[in-house]
Amino acid sequence: MSEKINRVVLAYSGGLDTSVILKWLQQTYGCEVVTFTADLGQGEELEPARAKAEMMGVKPEHIFVDDLREEFVKDYIYPMMRANALYEGLYLLGTSIARPLIAKRQIEIARMVNADAVSHGATGKGNDQVRFELGYYALAPDIKVIAPWREWDLTSRTRLIEFAEQHQIPVSKDKRGESPFSTDANILHTSSEGKVLEDPWDEVPDYVYSRTVNPEDAPDVPQVITVDFERGDAVAINGEGMSPATLLAKLNDLGRAHGIGRLDLVENRFVGMKSRGMYETPGGTILHLAHRGVEQVTLDRGAAHLKDELMPRYAELLYNGFWFSPEREMLQAAIDYSQEKVTGTVRLKLYKGSVSITGRKSPHSLYSEKVVTFEDDQGAYDQRDAEGFIKLNALRLRLLGRRDHA
Amino acid sequence: MSEKINRVVLAYSGGLDTSVILKWLQQTYGCEVVTFTADLGQGEELEPARAKAEMMGVKPEHIFVDDLREEFVKDYIYPMMRANALYEGLYLLGTSIARPLIAKRQIEIARMVNADAVSHGATGKGNDQVRFELGYYALAPDIKVIAPWREWDLTSRTRLIEFAEQHQIPVSKDKRGESPFSTDANILHTSSEGKVLEDPWDEVPDYVYSRTVNPEDAPDVPQVITVDFERGDAVAINGEGMSPATLLAKLNDLGRAHGIGRLDLVENRFVGMKSRGMYETPGGTILHLAHRGVEQVTLDRGAAHLKDELMPRYAELLYNGFWFSPEREMLQAAIDYSQEKVTGTVRLKLYKGSVSITGRKSPHSLYSEKVVTFEDDQGAYDQRDAEGFIKLNALRLRLLGRRDHA
Amino acid sequence: MSEKINRVVLAYSGGLDTSVILKWLQQTYGCEVVTFTADLGQGEELEPARAKAEMMGVKPEHIFVDDLREEFVKDYIYPMMRANALYEGLYLLGTSIARPLIAKRQIEIARMVNADAVSHGATGKGNDQVRFELGYYALAPDIKVIAPWREWDLTSRTRLIEFAEQHQIPVSKDKRGESPFSTDANILHTSSEGKVLEDPWDEVPDYVYSRTVNPEDAPDVPQVITVDFERGDAVAINGEGMSPATLLAKLNDLGRAHGIGRLDLVENRFVGMKSRGMYETPGGTILHLAHRGVEQVTLDRGAAHLKDELMPRYAELLYNGFWFSPEREMLQAAIDYSQEKVTGTVRLKLYKGSVSITGRKSPHSLYSEKVVTFEDDQGAYDQRDAEGFIKLNALRLRLLGRRDHA
Amino acid sequence: MSEKINRVVLAYSGGLDTSVILKWLQQTYGCEVVTFTADLGQGEELEPARAKAEMMGVKPEHIFVDDLREEFVKDYIYPMMRANALYEGLYLLGTSIARPLIAKRQIEIARMVNADAVSHGATGKGNDQVRFELGYYALAPDIKVIAPWREWDLTSRTRLIEFAEQHQIPVSKDKRGESPFSTDANILHTSSEGKVLEDPWDEVPDYVYSRTVNPEDAPDVPQVITVDFERGDAVAINGEGMSPATLLAKLNDLGRAHGIGRLDLVENRFVGMKSRGMYETPGGTILHLAHRGVEQVTLDRGAAHLKDELMPRYAELLYNGFWFSPEREMLQAAIDYSQEKVTGTVRLKLYKGSVSITGRKSPHSLYSEKVVTFEDDQGAYDQRDAEGFIKLNALRLRLLGRRDHA
Repeated sequence: MSEKINRVVLAYSGGLDTSVILKWLQQTYGCEVVTFTADLGQGEELEPARAKAEMMGVKPEHIFVDDLREEFVKDYIYPMMRANALYEGLYLLGTSIARPLIAKRQIEIARMVNADAVSHGATGKGNDQVRFELGYYALAPDIKVIAPWREWDLTSRTRLIEFAEQHQIPVSKDKRGESPFSTDANILHTSSEGKVLEDPWDEVPDYVYSRTVNPEDAPDVPQVITVDFERGDAVAINGEGMSPATLLAKLNDLGRAHGIGRLDLVENRFVGMKSRGMYETPGGTILHLAHRGVEQVTLDRGAAHLKDELMPRYAELLYNGFWFSPEREMLQAAIDYSQEKVTGTVRLKLYKGSVSITGRKSPHSLYSEKVVTFEDDQGAYDQRDAEGFIKLNALRLRLLGRRDHA
Repeated sequence: MSEKINRVVLAYSGGLDTSVILKWLQQTYGCEVVTFTADLGQGEELEPARAKAEMMGVKPEHIFVDDLREEFVKDYIYPMMRANALYEGLYLLGTSIARPLIAKRQIEIARMVNADAVSHGATGKGNDQVRFELGYYALAPDIKVIAPWREWDLTSRTRLIEFAEQHQIPVSKDKRGESPFSTDANILHTSSEGKVLEDPWDEVPDYVYSRTVNPEDAPDVPQVITVDFERGDAVAINGEGMSPATLLAKLNDLGRAHGIGRLDLVENRFVGMKSRGMYETPGGTILHLAHRGVEQVTLDRGAAHLKDELMPRYAELLYNGFWFSPEREMLQAAIDYSQEKVTGTVRLKLYKGSVSITGRKSPHSLYSEKVVTFEDDQGAYDQRDAEGFIKLNALRLRLLGRRDHA
Repeated sequence: MSEKINRVVLAYSGGLDTSVILKWLQQTYGCEVVTFTADLGQGEELEPARAKAEMMGVKPEHIFVDDLREEFVKDYIYPMMRANALYEGLYLLGTSIARPLIAKRQIEIARMVNADAVSHGATGKGNDQVRFELGYYALAPDIKVIAPWREWDLTSRTRLIEFAEQHQIPVSKDKRGESPFSTDANILHTSSEGKVLEDPWDEVPDYVYSRTVNPEDAPDVPQVITVDFERGDAVAINGEGMSPATLLAKLNDLGRAHGIGRLDLVENRFVGMKSRGMYETPGGTILHLAHRGVEQVTLDRGAAHLKDELMPRYAELLYNGFWFSPEREMLQAAIDYSQEKVTGTVRLKLYKGSVSITGRKSPHSLYSEKVVTFEDDQGAYDQRDAEGFIKLNALRLRLLGRRDHA
Repeated sequence: MSEKINRVVLAYSGGLDTSVILKWLQQTYGCEVVTFTADLGQGEELEPARAKAEMMGVKPEHIFVDDLREEFVKDYIYPMMRANALYEGLYLLGTSIARPLIAKRQIEIARMVNADAVSHGATGKGNDQVRFELGYYALAPDIKVIAPWREWDLTSRTRLIEFAEQHQIPVSKDKRGESPFSTDANILHTSSEGKVLEDPWDEVPDYVYSRTVNPEDAPDVPQVITVDFERGDAVAINGEGMSPATLLAKLNDLGRAHGIGRLDLVENRFVGMKSRGMYETPGGTILHLAHRGVEQVTLDRGAAHLKDELMPRYAELLYNGFWFSPEREMLQAAIDYSQEKVTGTVRLKLYKGSVSITGRKSPHSLYSEKVVTFEDDQGAYDQRDAEGFIKLNALRLRLLGRRDHA
């Protein structure tokens, strides 16, 4: 709090916490607050956030409400999907991927309104503070960052609500008691953590799920769909072309109906602790598998295996908040290079919580029935070549064996 | 065929193909054939193989029928499961992992009976020839290897059956026509490929599946089980301790009933072509996820991420047949080192084709509710530390930003 | 020899071996031979090769003599230098990098003259056959490849010379006896192997070296030079701009004079055996270190470390002949992406066999004296941030320690 | 300073800075200080440190002076040498490797004397604070750590000396002015940084070097030595067996005389900035190359390449202070596994600043003259195998080529 702040751009959801932050910033720093509210497909109305900000004294021209859904899917989710990114083998990085875009837009707004600081509502224990702030610093190295949760003394729910009431910030009834868990949502996923989820042995209660039906309640009949890809990106469902965000929203509907994409995970946070979260990624789960499906027939083995080896590092970088880093961009350059011919169609079956590939085809297929067939291949492959192949692959092992086993 | 062979140990299933090979070896090389038939949990009677071998003139003391199930699970499948190995993101390596054990046992028998050659029934287009022969050469660098499918002229089904009939080898009715697909089975999985599966756009016909019920026919009610691990290895189901092979067989029963572990895959063979296979790995699919579950609470992040980065290489080595190689053993040493505290219990839900983790606990858990909690943590974690953490992680990005964005 | 060949493009040096091959191809395949002789900076006159080819009946329009030096340095050596590629920690890949260019040019010529085959003079034990042929097949999948050393029966020196004499191929006196070693040369290096070098315990005799003076005979006074880089590529020496091949030739002169770039190595060939070679890479050794020098001040840590981790794989791919592969191109895309700001000047000292960096500077330097200084940094870096940085980096280790050491 | 400290173990060199810290700790925390001074081969008398500590009121039984040279070389330097570790391609990690041992011994002493805190004299900008403290926390998760340089206000040289004079701490004349650079030394290396070295374009002045003669002043005649290895560790020089620390000291003498092991480097610190240092690692430079030499003939390609790929990560972990981490230990397990047969002798030439391998041999050599020879190999290698080897390695590239170039 040592530095004089004139104007700060706050990532503002319109909810209780960031409303308290808004007020707290005005009070504590005596500065002008600029709010930025993004539509990332979280499925909430944004106009109430505008109204609330105005009510709290933010100038109309300092209230930014942006629909970033298409940019989010096209420039963040799709590049990540090209990488087949999974953190710790299972997690589709739905929260991680949203943070860099928010940070980037905050910095753009800060430049437009000539602000000298940015602020966010992430706590001091989580990954999101890191992701926001690494983004800020990478894009605006000299920006001031205010992280109220690490600074203020509103450290209990009670005090937060007291502060809100003292400052005429509306507190909805369900916020008065402790929420049994906290959530984050965007077009890719909804995550939940805390409270009732804190014991990793306890099953996630059914009421925590909001984006998917319980697989047991899903239709008894499978649904079959196709997804078309061009250069690594999904472009159509069942042959119908649509924009990236429209397509992902459609997959979300399909995934929701079939109970697809639930994940109960204990993960390792960048800040050094383990946490337990529950994720629902309905459309993303389908998209991830579909992308693997089209790569199966279009990607060369060398490219595919290199991608698989680089993927954990790529996922770790995203999870840790290093989207805007040279090493992530280098990996992306390699991955994107590989996607030139990743064009084709995948057929998938959705049923009771699971998705599976049932077919894939491509105008650029590398699969050669003529070569692989058990039938007479008319000389496409000479089986005698295998002997030399094996012999030379074995040579070093034989030399070893003679030394060590003789 | 240039070298004089005296005695050859054949990996003999008792089926038509290896019976033809048996006879062909006797005729072509004028040598004594020793048969080796292994019980790897493929679920077939082995005594008929013994009878058939005897009938074809193999001396009783040259007929080896071994139950290798426990060794297979304990010394091959379990080490692989510790690695969370998946080939090309999806395949649990059920065929790959069986070959080194067969090769090793063949070499042991070759030494016992003083044979100078070994032989197998794998074709010249597949990976199995490589896996068998790399194993042979690594363990017995100077052994002679006979791969009939690469040598003989029985290149069509018709000629193979003619040869069988000429030599009084019984040909069952269903073998007379072309089989619509070919299979390999052991306690970990059943694989199917060829013929009706050759077009990767065509859905796998239902009759190809043999190890799992169709998820649509699985029970309408989920089943919840627990699996206990000690030092990375599964030791009990629902609290009941059992041997590795017994445990995997039990998981197979559970997986079969719930339609778990079906995989339709286009994969990249080591010999350079793409092939399409269908795999059923009921118990292994459960085991794989369960192992991830117990690692989630017991493995440090550094160890977990290193494992994830090494895994694709490890899986590739297994797939390509390099089980008996220094680099696989080095990776195994690293992986095994990490498993010292991977002890605990995972609870899983099985339902209609999918398996999911619903809880995990461990006496060695690294998950600390006290640290991670949203509630007051009584000083277990100082949120202000996060600022310095972020600042120094950001420093290089800020220096970059000043250079590149200013 | 089973297939009918009409016209073959031979990589022709004009030396005894490839002259014998030329004749042998004409005789054995009854086909027209097209010769291709490349100037890769090996330092030999090429016109005698043209004359010899003509003398042996090659049509003038079928004799290709190309100066590829600039293309070689610019499109092959420079990209490799950007990667800091070293095979097995020490070898600068001078032979490996030349093969893909020769293969590519042979295929271009084959297309021009409508040839159906290509041929080379590499033996069946080495890496070069693999490098040539992987190049051919990648660029012209259906080309026929003739590798005489794997086919013919001229397997001893005596028989080769007999064949030459029978066919009026001139044999210079020094070729009559066995050469005490064999060499390969281009603008990047000269390699020597075989015969007198075959015992890896024996010191390389002095007469084997041809590209560098003995360090003991080098000047007693060091020479200091500067090399300028732009976007990762060397562009000037001592401030004087020059083309890639001119620059490398100049560095070769400098390296030769100071005895720089000798390497006595036992390496692992792709075909599975160990071999012992001696390499002289005078200019390349300087260039390699100089590139590291300029990267030191211009490359971010994240990019630098990722490059270091990818490098061994990149070097292995080049060594094994996979220049024209998707995975090499993917890695190159990542590496090239990183070089955007690798612009600056490195000062080097050359002395008695060694080269060392004595200074580096760049208009894009990321080195900040202001941040790093021991003196008062006026707030550029807050030392208290280090505490939080360490605390959170330590958190997982502390949780581990409490579990394992308490 | 908020917590009450009773007794603190200080890593105490006896120099001015740590003497000031000693006094400052006594004053600021009102606590008992326990000093620990290690002989790591830095070449300084340690008894003066004892006397000085006593003079400053440390109880005799609280002064620990330990000769850790053998442990240092055997359990820290040798394992690192097995890995061929180089940070950023060039640096032999001489400072990094000493810190974990000091931290470990400090914790042992803290347990013995029942101390509740530890302290060190590393600054807030460097890597050493991280290395010390990660070690402390890993081994004693609940220890309190005092880092005076991050806490106190003695931030200029003048104030530090004033404090010393006020407290009767002797200040030698050469410490009164600013030192033109600062150094760290142990048996592996001496590092220098700061002040006159801060501009990375300026050449390192000759007076900065202390461990090696200037190569120009080194003998005009090369010296040839042999180093024997057993299981990856050096055990003898010129056939004379000696303990690890004796051996490294002997190599240091040799390296010093020949001007070997000087390195002028700009490196990336873990705390996010670039720094410029000068390192002298005379014996370590010889040892590093010698180890590569014996691996060349004893290590299989698969093991060697895996080691090369893992090395940058291993070096980064050491540099960043993660010696006591599961991932470093996992990598070490893999590396150590590979060293079983790394036994043999390397011959090296030392001359005017450089060291080069001139021969290597081993009872476990994998180098086979019989296989590699250009001469008739009597069937040890069948050149026709190469055709199949190439054909199958090329298959995927041909399928690609047909798709992409046709």
